Amino acid sequence: MEETKKKKCVVRFEPSGLKIEVPTGTVLLEAANKVGIYLSSICGGDGYCGKCKVVIDQGQFQSKPTALLTPNEMRENVVLACQTKVLSDMTVTVPKSHTLETSQILMDADADRFSELAGEVESGVFKFDPLVQKLYLEMVPPTVQDHTADHERLYLAIRERIDAPVMQTGFRILQKLSRVLASCGYKVTVTVGRRGETTEVIEVEAGDHSDRNFAVAVDLGTTTVVAHLVDLTKATTIDTEATYNSQINFGEDYIRRIIYAEENSAFDEMQNRIVGDVNNLIVTLATRQRIDLQDITTVVCAGNTAMVHFLLNLDPTRIRREPYIASANFIPPIRAAEAGIQINKRGLLYCLPSVAAYVGSDIVAGVLTTRIYTRKGISLFADIGTNGEVVVGNRDWLVCASSSAGPAFEGSGVKHGMRAGAGAIEKLSILGDGSIEFKTIGGTRPVGICGSGLLDTLAELFRNGIIDRTGRFNPAPIELPSSSGARNFGDRRCRADNWCGARLTEGEDGLQFRLVEGGDGHQEIVITQADIDNLVRSKAGVFAAIRVLMESTQTRTKDLEGVYLAGGFGNFLNVAHAVTIGMLPDVPLEKIHFVGNTSIAGAKTVLLSRKARKTAERIAQSMTYFDLMSHPGYMDEFIRANFLPHTDLSLFPSV
Amino acid sequence: MEETKKKKCVVRFEPSGLKIEVPTGTVLLEAANKVGIYLSSICGGDGYCGKCKVVIDQGQFQSKPTALLTPNEMRENVVLACQTKVLSDMTVTVPKSHTLETSQILMDADADRFSELAGEVESGVFKFDPLVQKLYLEMVPPTVQDHTADHERLYLAIRERIDAPVMQTGFRILQKLSRVLASCGYKVTVTVGRRGETTEVIEVEAGDHSDRNFAVAVDLGTTTVVAHLVDLTKATTIDTEATYNSQINFGEDYIRRIIYAEENSAFDEMQNRIVGDVNNLIVTLATRQRIDLQDITTVVCAGNTAMVHFLLNLDPTRIRREPYIASANFIPPIRAAEAGIQINKRGLLYCLPSVAAYVGSDIVAGVLTTRIYTRKGISLFADIGTNGEVVVGNRDWLVCASSSAGPAFEGSGVKHGMRAGAGAIEKLSILGDGSIEFKTIGGTRPVGICGSGLLDTLAELFRNGIIDRTGRFNPAPIELPSSSGARNFGDRRCRADNWCGARLTEGEDGLQFRLVEGGDGHQEIVITQADIDNLVRSKAGVFAAIRVLMESTQTRTKDLEGVYLAGGFGNFLNVAHAVTIGMLPDVPLEKIHFVGNTSIAGAKTVLLSRKARKTAERIAQSMTYFDLMSHPGYMDEFIRANFLPHTDLSLFPSV
Repeated sequence: MEETKKKKCVVRFEPSGLKIEVPTGTVLLEAANKVGIYLSSICGGDGYCGKCKVVIDQGQFQSKPTALLTPNEMRENVVLACQTKVLSDMTVTVPKSHTLETSQILMDADADRFSELAGEVESGVFKFDPLVQKLYLEMVPPTVQDHTADHERLYLAIRERIDAPVMQTGFRILQKLSRVLASCGYKVTVTVGRRGETTEVIEVEAGDHSDRNFAVAVDLGTTTVVAHLVDLTKATTIDTEATYNSQINFGEDYIRRIIYAEENSAFDEMQNRIVGDVNNLIVTLATRQRIDLQDITTVVCAGNTAMVHFLLNLDPTRIRREPYIASANFIPPIRAAEAGIQINKRGLLYCLPSVAAYVGSDIVAGVLTTRIYTRKGISLFADIGTNGEVVVGNRDWLVCASSSAGPAFEGSGVKHGMRAGAGAIEKLSILGDGSIEFKTIGGTRPVGICGSGLLDTLAELFRNGIIDRTGRFNPAPIELPSSSGARNFGDRRCRADNWCGARLTEGEDGLQFRLVEGGDGHQEIVITQADIDNLVRSKAGVFAAIRVLMESTQTRTKDLEGVYLAGGFGNFLNVAHAVTIGMLPDVPLEKIHFVGNTSIAGAKTVLLSRKARKTAERIAQSMTYFDLMSHPGYMDEFIRANFLPHTDLSLFPSV
Repeated sequence: MEETKKKKCVVRFEPSGLKIEVPTGTVLLEAANKVGIYLSSICGGDGYCGKCKVVIDQGQFQSKPTALLTPNEMRENVVLACQTKVLSDMTVTVPKSHTLETSQILMDADADRFSELAGEVESGVFKFDPLVQKLYLEMVPPTVQDHTADHERLYLAIRERIDAPVMQTGFRILQKLSRVLASCGYKVTVTVGRRGETTEVIEVEAGDHSDRNFAVAVDLGTTTVVAHLVDLTKATTIDTEATYNSQINFGEDYIRRIIYAEENSAFDEMQNRIVGDVNNLIVTLATRQRIDLQDITTVVCAGNTAMVHFLLNLDPTRIRREPYIASANFIPPIRAAEAGIQINKRGLLYCLPSVAAYVGSDIVAGVLTTRIYTRKGISLFADIGTNGEVVVGNRDWLVCASSSAGPAFEGSGVKHGMRAGAGAIEKLSILGDGSIEFKTIGGTRPVGICGSGLLDTLAELFRNGIIDRTGRFNPAPIELPSSSGARNFGDRRCRADNWCGARLTEGEDGLQFRLVEGGDGHQEIVITQADIDNLVRSKAGVFAAIRVLMESTQTRTKDLEGVYLAGGFGNFLNVAHAVTIGMLPDVPLEKIHFVGNTSIAGAKTVLLSRKARKTAERIAQSMTYFDLMSHPGYMDEFIRANFLPHTDLSLFPSV
């Protein structure tokens, strides 16, 4: 009782050892937030997602009752951090599932490993003409005979090198211009940035510094933020880094975060978090490559509309609320410092344009990267992430939509689901003898399943008849055959229809199928009926969106000349499985391409080419957005797609 | 002796009563500067112009020896403030000649009284399209069916009203945009500014405020700063105000001020002074008209190149030094706040473009105002101020030059010279009976002679044979005729050739001619031989510049279809006299027009019309500048012009 009278309590988090002093009565999730520990939370602290489980090792606490903890967990002092108040000094263990190291994130450093995407800029698809460039100019100094003023002399020299009909100079540069020019005999490095139709003189320095000009392309993901450091003088990527989006404590999806920010007046905090993440990535890259932050002159971001709004602290509230609009889809290049991005203090920040509240610049980047806007034939582009966005079109028209069927393929809402990072099962097959073969990212012990692994799992369970067309585990109790390859019979009840029986058990959440046996200090990995339901809903959402777009544009499956699947699935996506489960239309496999993180690839292309930037703007402007929530046919299509592969089997002749 | 040991001394200036505490040993001119008292100073404190005379009423001081004070002055404790150190508390009287009230400045409120200049904008010569305008927009709010983002919706609405192909929005506006739009049902006042080819959304406010939009046009003179307050909603001038340029303590001409700033690292101080003057004018106008400073959205300035550089704190040092160039002739519209101008904090400041170091935007404004750039026939434009700038040209070509022959017609270097302000003799004639008729500005007692009065004086002295063609007083001693109208014979020596004898006397500086008798508490006004020499040099400089331009372009006097004389001469300039003394070419009088302050008129036109701004930029760009200092023919022309009216009388058949 003595402890509870203290006004301040120290909470220590293991295994990090981070400590924080908080007032008695503070909610544990807040304490974690404050000390910078990211606990998963889908509901944003409302106590119904059950993701923020931690273990109280020591100390007094008070938890609200919840149905989300098993009796076992309660015995082991597992609590929901968002429902637990700190009453004394305490030690808390944060399960490993929360605290994935950033080194585990798949950074897609090789996003351009797909041959058709590589070298867009170098190969001349887009002319190399970066957003910000440094020009070394050796000007002829003025004489009594040649008395052009310094400012105009500079413009003339710049225009000899680049196309810049409309130019502008910052006031501070104008003020120092003559001094700098005179100091070095008119031999200067001038940094010029493209701001819309205007070319701005961003910096003027004495001497030649044109060999040091760097930029960072950023994919602003809801869960992860990925950055590529680019040498603008050579148009090459020299390093990559990634981190978790530290807004994640405020909700796993951006709608939750908008609600949280609105209810807690936390828009500044939201901006600080994502800007902090971007700055951390930039500093990490710069430090590792021994680059002065002043030599980084550009940041180009692509991301969903809400993340761009958070980054710039634009009002995102009507993204989630009627009439479901963005504050701005098109954002001019601004000074990076205005948004708090720590590069050259006069450097530029450009966010690719969005199409609508639910189709962001990451999708525009995807269209740009896959070049479907240049083809005569019709293509389909689908980006499966926290949401599933879909684009159909060709060089004449583009339509798009977003399905809000949930981020199951990102591992969310799936018991052992995880992002594509070290230890994630990214490839899985069920062999003829019932044994399961899998491959993890990094070749380490499995700790969960990422998108590509989940796709494989769903397809393999379906192909082997372990789940039926409705996605249900086959409930008929069947004796195990003696020749089964499954050798573990420890489960209490067994209803499997053949060799899988030993793997199909009744878990705490109902039926579950064991993919990896636990023991030896590493965890058992299962897939539950609820997981499968989530995955099916997710794929149904994507497919229904595709159907609405195709129906609306009278596109038949056979009209599709290319199908592009983007997202953080992992490196080894079996595209055939995306057809097997009915997520993608049943086209010949050679037409399907997994294109990885096209958001960062597109951001990088725009960074390197003014033409690409204009193209991105044209794409965003010309795409027609379908609001599925108000579309009369969507719900029917969604219900019809809630089967494996589909209610209408004629759509999937090959399955 | 006790007094001199004090470390601090209090200096009190009369008649203002202003006091300041300074360290013992401070130069009196600095003390005056600090307390904001403007003493005339041409040399900038070097002790050789003799303009900064003050009277020490009480207290100890130490003065350097000087030949610029008469024994009488020394007896009366007159000192040069720049050569005098403060050694004790003291009281100093500042002669009235220094402390002209600003109400005496001719503000040229009626600069558009010249019929051909009036209503440039209203009459449709230039379309009314102000630099900054407020548009009240009633937009249709977004719906689920019409989900255009707020930013793009705003652009669409603006483009329905004005031509704005390239638009830009400030980041802070973008951040608040959605909140403002939602707060008022999408009925907003948007302030848009033209920045080069880009139209910027400067402000967005809920509701209709489009009836409150004001601007200030400024003529940045070396000696005076004139401001006109304009109602942008009606394109009318509603008030005018003027003040002395408070840089004046640092030198009467801008070359002196550049030297002073360089030697004393006083560029910031120079900027503070002129910005302070502009701010004072703006505040005075706003207060008098009960206008909120936030409703002033634009300031447009015209002035010589050096003054614009001082205003913006651009490097002016090479204006006075080889290669005699400006830091910038073209300056994009900037945010006024960036230069310290206190209007709407997002309002714009635009300085008209200059042509060269010695041909500033005031001259461009003059060409714009007189419209000589539109005429098929050749015109001549001359602006006589601190310098004398000259333009010759037509709609196909324009050439210009600046003569540095000194500001005699502004009253500088002339014993009783003064600017065109209250009490200045602005009109003078010598009648047949030898009496002198004159008119002062404001009808008050005469305190000096302004430009138009000096022109009259010179012409009348010459016409009446009191000075000869070399500008010398006729030295032959002649007896006074008994019938002379001159009734004052008090002078010691008399050499006049007729009735003027009594007026022509030997003063302290040699021969001088009395224009106004002193006595009854008001001062005697004379013109000295040195004054006349200065005036002749000044007119010779202007005429030589005109000759160089005409010779270079093979323009004959008879080719000139219009001659425009600008400057702060006063309201009643007798243009015939400008020909009589040989300042302007000998063209029929009906071709000569006195056009007053075309600098402020041009600034105002540019303020009101985007087309006019573009025209001004085209004028500045296309004008060919002749550097007279390096021009082989200039010195010959100057020497030839140092006669009345000229060495070559064939150039002046009518005189």
